[in-house]
Parts: sequence; C-alpha cells; structure tokens
Amino acid sequence: MPHHVTDELLSLWGVLKRNGYRFVQYSVLAAGIVAMAAMTVPELRGESGSWLRIVLWACLGFFAAELVAKSWPKKSRPKKSDPDATTYLFSLSGLIDLLSVLPIPLALLFGASPQSAWLLASLWLLKLTPVGAGLSLLGRVMQQEARPLTSVGVLFLIVLLLAAVALYALEGSVQPERFGTVPRALWWAVTTLTTTGYGDAVPQTSLGRLIAAFVMVSGLGLFGLWAGILATGFATEHRRRDFIRNWDLVTSVPFLRNLNAPAIIELTRMLRRIDLPERSMVVRQGRPGDCMYFIASGEVEVRLEPNPIRLGAGAFFGEIALLDGSPRTATVTTTMPSTLLILEVSDFRAFTAHHPELARSVEVEAARRRDKQNDGAAKTARLSPEPLENSGDG
Amino acid sequence: MPHHVTDELLSLWGVLKRNGYRFVQYSVLAAGIVAMAAMTVPELRGESGSWLRIVLWACLGFFAAELVAKSWPKKSRPKKSDPDATTYLFSLSGLIDLLSVLPIPLALLFGASPQSAWLLASLWLLKLTPVGAGLSLLGRVMQQEARPLTSVGVLFLIVLLLAAVALYALEGSVQPERFGTVPRALWWAVTTLTTTGYGDAVPQTSLGRLIAAFVMVSGLGLFGLWAGILATGFATEHRRRDFIRNWDLVTSVPFLRNLNAPAIIELTRMLRRIDLPERSMVVRQGRPGDCMYFIASGEVEVRLEPNPIRLGAGAFFGEIALLDGSPRTATVTTTMPSTLLILEVSDFRAFTAHHPELARSVEVEAARRRDKQNDGAAKTARLSPEPLENSGDG
Amino acid sequence: MPHHVTDELLSLWGVLKRNGYRFVQYSVLAAGIVAMAAMTVPELRGESGSWLRIVLWACLGFFAAELVAKSWPKKSRPKKSDPDATTYLFSLSGLIDLLSVLPIPLALLFGASPQSAWLLASLWLLKLTPVGAGLSLLGRVMQQEARPLTSVGVLFLIVLLLAAVALYALEGSVQPERFGTVPRALWWAVTTLTTTGYGDAVPQTSLGRLIAAFVMVSGLGLFGLWAGILATGFATEHRRRDFIRNWDLVTSVPFLRNLNAPAIIELTRMLRRIDLPERSMVVRQGRPGDCMYFIASGEVEVRLEPNPIRLGAGAFFGEIALLDGSPRTATVTTTMPSTLLILEVSDFRAFTAHHPELARSVEVEAARRRDKQNDGAAKTARLSPEPLENSGDG
Amino acid sequence: MPHHVTDELLSLWGVLKRNGYRFVQYSVLAAGIVAMAAMTVPELRGESGSWLRIVLWACLGFFAAELVAKSWPKKSRPKKSDPDATTYLFSLSGLIDLLSVLPIPLALLFGASPQSAWLLASLWLLKLTPVGAGLSLLGRVMQQEARPLTSVGVLFLIVLLLAAVALYALEGSVQPERFGTVPRALWWAVTTLTTTGYGDAVPQTSLGRLIAAFVMVSGLGLFGLWAGILATGFATEHRRRDFIRNWDLVTSVPFLRNLNAPAIIELTRMLRRIDLPERSMVVRQGRPGDCMYFIASGEVEVRLEPNPIRLGAGAFFGEIALLDGSPRTATVTTTMPSTLLILEVSDFRAFTAHHPELARSVEVEAARRRDKQNDGAAKTARLSPEPLENSGDG
Repeated sequence: MPHHVTDELLSLWGVLKRNGYRFVQYSVLAAGIVAMAAMTVPELRGESGSWLRIVLWACLGFFAAELVAKSWPKKSRPKKSDPDATTYLFSLSGLIDLLSVLPIPLALLFGASPQSAWLLASLWLLKLTPVGAGLSLLGRVMQQEARPLTSVGVLFLIVLLLAAVALYALEGSVQPERFGTVPRALWWAVTTLTTTGYGDAVPQTSLGRLIAAFVMVSGLGLFGLWAGILATGFATEHRRRDFIRNWDLVTSVPFLRNLNAPAIIELTRMLRRIDLPERSMVVRQGRPGDCMYFIASGEVEVRLEPNPIRLGAGAFFGEIALLDGSPRTATVTTTMPSTLLILEVSDFRAFTAHHPELARSVEVEAARRRDKQNDGAAKTARLSPEPLENSGDG
Repeated sequence: MPHHVTDELLSLWGVLKRNGYRFVQYSVLAAGIVAMAAMTVPELRGESGSWLRIVLWACLGFFAAELVAKSWPKKSRPKKSDPDATTYLFSLSGLIDLLSVLPIPLALLFGASPQSAWLLASLWLLKLTPVGAGLSLLGRVMQQEARPLTSVGVLFLIVLLLAAVALYALEGSVQPERFGTVPRALWWAVTTLTTTGYGDAVPQTSLGRLIAAFVMVSGLGLFGLWAGILATGFATEHRRRDFIRNWDLVTSVPFLRNLNAPAIIELTRMLRRIDLPERSMVVRQGRPGDCMYFIASGEVEVRLEPNPIRLGAGAFFGEIALLDGSPRTATVTTTMPSTLLILEVSDFRAFTAHHPELARSVEVEAARRRDKQNDGAAKTARLSPEPLENSGDG
Repeated sequence: MPHHVTDELLSLWGVLKRNGYRFVQYSVLAAGIVAMAAMTVPELRGESGSWLRIVLWACLGFFAAELVAKSWPKKSRPKKSDPDATTYLFSLSGLIDLLSVLPIPLALLFGASPQSAWLLASLWLLKLTPVGAGLSLLGRVMQQEARPLTSVGVLFLIVLLLAAVALYALEGSVQPERFGTVPRALWWAVTTLTTTGYGDAVPQTSLGRLIAAFVMVSGLGLFGLWAGILATGFATEHRRRDFIRNWDLVTSVPFLRNLNAPAIIELTRMLRRIDLPERSMVVRQGRPGDCMYFIASGEVEVRLEPNPIRLGAGAFFGEIALLDGSPRTATVTTTMPSTLLILEVSDFRAFTAHHPELARSVEVEAARRRDKQNDGAAKTARLSPEPLENSGDG
Repeated sequence: MPHHVTDELLSLWGVLKRNGYRFVQYSVLAAGIVAMAAMTVPELRGESGSWLRIVLWACLGFFAAELVAKSWPKKSRPKKSDPDATTYLFSLSGLIDLLSVLPIPLALLFGASPQSAWLLASLWLLKLTPVGAGLSLLGRVMQQEARPLTSVGVLFLIVLLLAAVALYALEGSVQPERFGTVPRALWWAVTTLTTTGYGDAVPQTSLGRLIAAFVMVSGLGLFGLWAGILATGFATEHRRRDFIRNWDLVTSVPFLRNLNAPAIIELTRMLRRIDLPERSMVVRQGRPGDCMYFIASGEVEVRLEPNPIRLGAGAFFGEIALLDGSPRTATVTTTMPSTLLILEVSDFRAFTAHHPELARSVEVEAARRRDKQNDGAAKTARLSPEPLENSGDG
C-alpha cells in the first residue's frame, strides 16, 4: 500500500515534469492575478504595495520575455513544432500574448493611474491553454445549433421586453424608483428571467406578481430548451471530435489495421484515447480488469516479478483479464509519454461478437504469451504483439 | 494575412448586401425600441423628447409603408415568392405587421396618453424573423412532449399550492405582511420553487424553513425533469427537421442520386447544409481539411494559381484533403449565394466503409482532376465531375 | 380563411364536448381553489365571505356526489370501463377522492376554525388527471435511476452539512443571528446550494465567501448531474412507453400486420400516435405534406369536392404527398373520436429504403386510388385499403 | 386489498431485516448528527446539554467499536466477504471510519472546546454507503469529460474575473462598500454568474447593469453547456456500467447461455437487474404484465392456489402475460434475497423479432407449463424449465 502512494507521487511528479514550463507559466499567471486583485484593496496596497508592484512588473516581464522568445526567428529554437514568428504574431495565441504585454505600459504611458492600468492584468487569464479549446468547442456548438439558439434567444428577448413594459405600466407609479422607466423595468426583467432574483426590485401589485410568476416559469422553460439544445449540440460535436482523433491512432496499430473498413469504423467509435506522461501507472496488479489497452505511441513496462518487460507502439496488453475475468496479473506503467487506446470490456464483447476474428487473434496472442511465460523464455522483444515473452513468475 | 482580413470583410459585406432590406428593417426596429424605452425616462423625454417622437413616428411610418407595400395587389411587385395580398393579411406574419402599425394610432385616437400609446411599440419586436421559427420549434416540441410536460407542470402546481398553504398556516401569524394570505404565500412559493429567491419573503419558523428547503430541492428536481423532457423532444425534432431539409438537396446532386435508397437515407442523415452569401470563403488554402462539399445550388470559384475555375450545382470539392490527409490545395469562395452540403471526414469514412462505390467514384474523379491538372489543360474543368468551365475571369 | 377559423372553432368545441364532464369538474376545482385562497384575504372575506362559503360548500358537495356516484354498486351505471365500487375505493384515485371530501367536515367537526378547515381544499388539486401520470412517470424514472440519484442526493447532503458547519465555525461569532447555530447555517446552505439565494444570510468573512462560492459552483455541478440523470432516465422511459402504446395499434392495421416481425418492430419505433376528438381537422388541402396516417380506430372524412368519402380503421391516407412531394390534395377531418398513427416523411423514406415491400404496396394502392378517381367510379367502400374509391374532382 | 397491505408491510420488513445492521448504523449516524447540530443551539445546550453529550459519546463509541471490529484479525468473524484488517485500514472505507473516530478525541486532547470538537461529527456523514458510489460515478464522468469540463470551467473563470474587474472600475467609486476592491467585486460576480443572486451587492450604473445582464445570461449559457456535458458523460457511463453488471448474470442463466454471442450482447443491453430482499412481491395476480423475469440467483414462490411452487436460479417466469397479453395469473414473491433480470415487453418483442429461437423456447416452455397445469400434476414443476419443486409449504 505505501508502494501505492509512492507510485501516485511519482505519477504526479511525471505530470509536473512533463508540463514543467506550463507549470511555471501558470504559477506566474496566478501570482500576477492575485497581486492585481490585492492592489485594489487599500489595506494591502498600503502595507505591501511595493512588493505587489514588484510582483506585477515581474509577471509582465516574464510574459514580455515569452513574447519576444516566441516571435524570435526560429533558427535557434529547439522545438520544431513552433510556428514561425510572423504566423505566430497574427494567430489567436499571438494576439493574446500581445494583449497581455502591451496594454499595461501603453496605459501608463498615456497617463492612466497605475491602479487602473494594472487592472488590465486580468487579460492574462486568456493565456490559459483550455481557453482556445473552450472557445473553439463553444464556437462549433453554437455554429451547428445557430438556428435554434437564435430562436430561443429571440423568444428570451421578447419575454424580456414585454415583461418590462408590462411591469413599467403596472408598477411604474407604485414604485417609481424601481419600475419608473422601461430601462429600470428591463433590469428587473433580466434578473427575474434568469432566475437570479436579486430582490432589489420586486413587484407589489397582484397583476405585476402574476406576470412575474409567468416570467420566472418562462425563464425555466427557455433555459430548459437552451440546455437541451446545447446538450444535443455538444453530444454531436463530441462524437465527431473523438472519431477524428481516434481514426489515425487506430490505423497506426498494426494489429487493428488488418480489419476491414466497417470494423475499423466501429472500433474507432468504441476506443477512448488517453495521453499519459512517463511513469504513470496504467494497470495495478490484483485490481479487477475492465478494459484492454492498445499502445498508439510511447512505451510501457509490465512489472513481471524477476524480469519486467517492455511493450512499444503497436502492442496491446490487459487482454487476459478480459478473456477470463481474472484480476490484473501485473502492474503496468509507462516509461515515456505515451498515448493509449482503451477498449472497455463491454465494447470488447460487443465488437468480438460481430467480428470474431479479433477475439481469435487476441486469444491466439494471449495463449502464445502464456505459453512463453511457462517456457520461461527470454526477455527481449519489446515492440510488438509478435515477440512478447517474459520469464519468471509465469 | 492582410489578404485574409480583406476576405473576411468582403464576406461580411456580402452578408449585409444580401440581407440589405432585413438590415434596414432591423435597424429601424432597434431605433424604435430604444426610442420607446428612452421616452419613459423623464430626463431624456425632457431634453430630447421631440427628437424621440420624430424617431418613433418615422419607425411607425416605415412599418406602415411596409404593410401597405406587402398587401398591395401583386402585379407590380418583383419578388414572385411573395404570397398574394389577402393570404398575407390573414397569415401570422400579416397579423404581426398589422399589430405593429394599428394599435398605436388607435390608442392615441381613443385618448390614451402618448406615453402609454408608444409602449405598444414593444410589439415591433415580434417582427424579428426567428420569432416564427422559434415559436414553431417550441410548438412542435411542446406538442410532441405534451403529456410529460403537462404532468410535470401539474406536479409543479401541486407543490406550489401545498407549499403556499403550509407556509400560510405556519407563518401567517408570524409575518402577516408576507404570508398573511394564501395569494401572498403563493408569491413566496413561486419565487422559491423557480429558485429565483428575491428574499422579500423568507420563512422564519423552523418548520417553515424545512418546507422551504423541500420546495427548493423539488424546484431543482422538477426543473431537471423539465429540462430532460425538452432536451429529448428537441433532439428528436432536430433530427426530423434536418432530414427533411437535406433530402431534396441530396437527390438534387447527380453524383449522389445514383446511390441506392438506403445509402441516400444514410447520407441524408450525415450531411449538414449551409447557406452562404456570395463572396464567402468556403475553404482556405493550407488549412487542414476535415470535410468535403457538394454544391446543391449556386457556384463557387476555386482559386487555382494561373487560372481559377468555377464549379456549379452538382459538383463537389474538397475531397483531396479527405483522401490523402493533405492540407487544402486551393482557396474556394462562392461567386453567388450558394447552398452547400458538408460531409465531415468522420462521416465520409463511415459511409465509404459501407458503400465503397462512393469512395471509388470520388477517387476516380479526384484522379481525373489531378491528371488534367498535370496535363496542363488548365483552362478546362479541373475539379468538376462534369465540365462546368467558364472563360470569363478564368 | 374564415372557413379555416370555423374549422378551428369546431375542432375546439369537439374537444370540449368530448371532455365535457372533465371540463365541468375542472371548473368546479378551479372555482373551489380560488375561493379557498380568497377566503384567506381579510378584505375579500369581509365583503363577500358568504358567497365564498357558498362556493366552497357547493364544490365540496359536487365532489361528495362524485364520490358517492363512483362508489355506488355498478348495475345502474352506464360506463362499463368503470371499476367496481370496492376496487375504486381502495385505488389511488378513490383515495384522492376520499381525501378531497372527508377531511374538511371532519376538521370542522373536531372544532377547527372554518378558515383552517377550508385550507384542506388545496388537496382538491390532486384530482387533476395528469397527477397520476406525472407521479407514475416520476416514479418510474426515479426507480430506474435510483442508484445514481441517491448518490447525487448524498453528495448534496454532504456538501450541505459540511458547508453549514464550516460557515457556523467561521461566521457564527460575526453574525450570530444568521450563522449562530448549525440549523441556521443549514438554512443558509440550502438556499445557496440550490442557487435560490434569498440574501437573508450572506457570509461576510473572506473565507466564508470563498466557501460560499464553492458551494454555489457545487450546486450548479450537482444540479447538472441531476438534470443529466433525469434526462437519461426520461429518454429511456419515454421510448419504452411509446413502444408499448404503439405495438398493439400497429398490429391492428391489416396493411401493416403482414410485415415480418423485425419490420413491425422498426415501424413501431417510428410511428407516433395521436388521439383526436370528432370533427378535428387532420390534413388541410394545399398544405405541404410531411407525413402519412394510418387509422388505428375511428373514422375520417376526405373532403373531395362533389362527394366526400370516408375511411375507417385499417385504412391509411396522406401517402400521395409523400410519394410525389405535392401539397395535400384534400382536407381530411375525423367524423368520430379517432386514433391515428403518424409516419413522418423521414421515417417513411428510411423504412421503405430497407423494406421496399411497404413502399410498393403503398404505391400500388395510391395508383389504384388515382385510377379509380379517373374512372369517376363509386363512392361507397368506407373501411379499407382495399376498396377505396371516390368520384368527382379526380 | 388488505392482503395487499400486509404484503407491502412484510416486504418493507424484509428490507429492514436484510439491511438490519445498516439500519442501526444509519440511525446512530442520524442521531449523532442531529445531536451535533442541537449542541450548537444555546437553548437546547442549556436545557438538555448533558443528554446531547451522552448521545454524541454513544455514537462515537459505536463507531469506534465498529472500527475495532472491522480491523480485528478475521478468524473469528463470520462474513467472509470482509477484507482482511490491514487492507481495510488502508482502503477508502477504512480511512473514512478512522476519520469518524479519531479527530474528535484528538481535538479534545489538544484543548479544543467541546463545542468545536463535536463539529467534527459532521464527518460521520461520509459513512453513508452511496458516498463511495457517488464519488466514483462523479469521478468517472469527470475523467471522461475532463477536457470539455475544463474548457467550460476556464470560460467560467474568465467571465468571472473580467466581470469583477469591469464592475470594480465602474461601480468602485459609487458603492465602495460593495465593489470597492476586486475581491469584493468577485464576490458579486460569483453570486451573479451562478444566478444565486443574494442581492447584497447590486450594480447601480447603467453600464454596470448591462454587464451584469450579460453575466447572468452567460451564467445560463455556461451552465447549459455544463449540464449538457455531464448529461452526455453520464449517459455513456451508465450504459457501460449496466452492461458490465448484467453480462455475468446473463451468462449464468442456462436458458440464455445457449444463445450466440451477438444475441447475448443484445440481450445484456436490454435486461435490467434488480436485487430484492426476501419476501418481496415481484408480480401481483391480476395486474397487467409488461415484463418477464429471469432468476439470476435466489428463489421465488409462485402462489398458485392449491399448491404454490418454487423456482430457483436459472428459471424464468412471467412469460405468459407477455405471450398472450393476459393479466398476471399468479402472485410471485421471493423466498430469499434474490437477483432478477427484467426483460420489458418492448425489448422482448424486439429481441424475439431478430432471434425467434428464444421466442420459440419460451413458448415451448410456456405450453409445457400450461399442459402440466391442465393435467392437474399440480405438485410438480409447473413453471420452471427444469423441475425445481419443493414439497415443504407447497
């Protein structure tokens, strides 16, 4: 069990090491935003204002250095996946990087008070990586469902305006402070239709309350439709995205490549992809096995007792637990950042029911492995479903 | 990159030009509603009341002119899709147009104060086009799911009334101002059950609070059911509507018409339709390609370097990126308002797995195009399945 | 178009006539509940107390009479679908009927003030028919999803208690009135976790607010899960219920009975059932046709110009618009309460793609009809797909 | 009908008896938590403080005894499903048990006031069994949907911070108490974005209100996406989990084992599992039958009039109502804790349409049963596929 804890810690460390730069970047980002927020609190500004200012300038410096490094001509840079400088500067990511660096000094230059200028540090949050993915996801779903979303949005607008006008007419003279103009009544309508309900403006007349009740229920109804549309759109987008990501991986596994096209399609829909950093534990000995794994890229180590063995891209493991329902026979960890494809037991059975050839191949392979284990044979054969032996406790 | 910006602007301009009339109409609508709201603010009414009144009368005049023009005998009107005058006046759209013009002068005539009369300008919002679509969508979903929605609605009513009566009994004497009558307690119940929570009426007794807690949780539960029902109904309706819209388009593409019936059904489910104004960019050179396009109507221009070519209805493009995974080889823009059918890469692969004949036809066509390009027979029909050349700007 | 309005009114009248008794019952119910609520308002009780009391006693009398009539030995009663008296008294519906009659006189007998006793009139709401259906739906979904719903419910409880204890510890001394005991803090927690937010108790300390923010976000998360579970459960239940309702209807249509079992299953999943009162308009001439109809029971009249014809159970209509995409060729209305099965155009095409035999039969029938129309032949043949001719405008 | 009530009560008693220990445990838990909450109310602490303290110490003692009993070496313990002591102590359940016992005496030992120390009793809630299941469910869904959930979470953060900074800039000088610092504005932003809306901080400027309206609508939108993601994730997880649970049960029914692999897959997807305590009523005579049952483990008694018979694991019942649509012919109750697999009528028909062999087997069996009944061979095996008779109470 303490072994277990060690593994978990190592696994966590692997994640940190792999994401080292991002970890530093996010720490700087968090420090900067906390400092920005602290700057607005008079007590903290009084006591430790100079420290906060140093933190803020340091963060700005860090992001400026990052911008310069990224837009520098690429010869000297090691990562070849980086785009070249001009492309970068005109991309969304380049724009965000510019937005986190330039506005603050410009605002100071044009005479804004430091306190106001540093508020622009809130733009640093846009540097978080999932922002792009989130906006892209939202964008795709909104584009696909543009028509129904617009329809619901327009219904929302109409309920909003009609309710505001009605309440203005009904309560305008009773509570002039709250419903005395249509814009004020609109403020009430929006807090009510979204069921936020601040309670700063509350209708007093019976008819006003009846309309308010109708607005609240409409709010729930419109929001239910809204959630339904987004849920439908998201589910569609999700399936599409997974399919594209999995397709190339599936065809990169030699074992699966020989299946006919409809089978590959079916399997692509079933497999789930995970990206693991090095030293992640994939399977723990003795646990029940509810899936098998295909290695799309990277390498794993099967911790068989005397001589652990390694499996590389194209190999699979974890099939024994699926075939006979026994618990996992060995612990498996990654030795380098790896991409695995997971086939759940339910999908494995559904798939092999229609495509017995895969089951047979897996069984042949599993039998061969077990035999080899019994022979007590060698410990080489890293990259394959073909030569995959191990000696020892077999 | 600046080239890119120009394209985007042109594309935006295309949208505006195409929707020119609607753009003017919506601007008038927005101006009118803003003026109506401003009229209710004493300061604005004082300062610029006469200007606001001019704007409002101008908007009313615009809508009146529109009504007259639409209901005029059709001989002299160019758009033949317009229905004849009487049909129009008795349709939903005609009713809305009447509702935006008549009530205001009538109200003024019958002695309403101008301030009240102009509130009726909020009805102008009903002229927004998506209103019809939105109401029709809502109507279909509500009709399909009428029984469960009614059931949930009745449960909602029961919880509402029982909670109100219980709170009236428990808190009526403690807070007579807020729970002293059943209608007042109902007001509390509706703000609580919809989780709006104004906070103007809050139970004070322990038992009252227990019941309130139960009401809040019921609110979440009922709303969850409600959202679930609407989501289910919407997903069904969505699929049905898309199918109908796509079916006729699919059978209008000669290339697809020869497929057998089940294949057409399958393809109809997969294709997504988009309507584009003229000069829209469909595909940008160098971008990764994740779908191919069939032209249902309209025309596109493929910007091949020396001589751009044009493709008309029935042609397809974008298939090369799907077949070999390469980035887009040319930029494609529409030359007139066009309707395209999009086949995503995931669906393309799934479809061709079961219907290899489509894949083969597409490949043959792609090969032919590539050959033609290599022959240098640049000016003729490189990308169309039938020769759809044009010599003008080619 | 005025013709159209007449039809709609007749259609509405048909609904009312058919549901006559229920209409009276619901009116009594609404009157009783409004009177009950009005009784609690001092001004109304003062002015028109005696009238309200008469209404309430009248409603009670009505429900008592209903109870007696329903539980009377069945010989003399016409409706044979009514269960016998003892079964009725021990059923849910009998229990509700008892609950609406007995408690009020009992309460008055045991010395409750009339004002309190009449509050029990709120139980009359349980007599609404959809209550049973709603509770049964809710019950089925809750039973099917019992495990995940319980899990989420327990998580809800834990967040609730932990947040309350934390806020009690943090804010108990700052705001003893609001967070001074754990029950008070629980009240805050439940208004926050359900995002109701009365605002009567608001944390003031920074840490308290941080925890409150976490509670709000947890509320959204738990509620999202909750809605997801209910949506999934509802969708499943929905499909199951529709299938059972449609199965017997499908097998009662002779035209469909000859299909093989898988086809019947498929069709049962596609058809949607509607129950129409007499004189309902099903199809209006000239409208686009997006579905065809099978008559499960009842009768419809096809308003062909000189001699309208009638179709009975087992017949189908509306197929011509599906086959050639033309608008509806005649208006169809029901002549008695009827149950129809609707087959959408999308499902019709999907189904006939896999089962061309149905398409062929429908086409043969449609051709025969058109021929007969051209022959100008007779006008009998009511109940059938077989002899279905009409003379006149063909 | 009173027979019915007796059955229900017996059934309830069966549940209680079977879950006897858990019932005691949960009662102790509830008592402890109520006592903990009561301790914080000054009046109750004054009056009955000593009693509350006794209850709390008794609960603590109970949980301590439970901890000791569970971690005791296993020789002397009857339940063999219990894990051994060290495994238990390092498991999640062991950790929770430790957390409910140790912290309170430790806190008292280190000088915490009894009032504070007993607050830790809120941790007892973690002992509820569904906690594990709930967390595991939540964990699986969150892991599967990690990417979109993170994206939405980050968008949530960005809207939160930008809105807070904007409101700080706009309203900071107007309402310094509420928007005077960014952390205060953040508090407003979180109550608004989650649509909780306490109303303690409300923007007053027009621009502030416009931004607030945008934040509320964003809140609905983000939450709709969030609910959609969780719903999609939950539906997937649900299907997977059911499949795994059902698979082994299906293959344990001899009658089903002979089906080919795709049929078993299909059936596994259709069956729903229920676990019943002893003396539960499964089927009531005279009710309409909408499903049949397979006994995965346990035993049921079919209450046929002269001689009830018993069916054990591997048998099925309830098929007659499915085959001919008649009501249930006999009442069936469990005689011991049993696991049944339910096949709904809709699924039965769908399945037998594709796999007529099952329908035939079921019909043969049903015919055999009916023959036997007619022969009056009452005492033997009427309803079991194999003779599973019992002579005891028959």
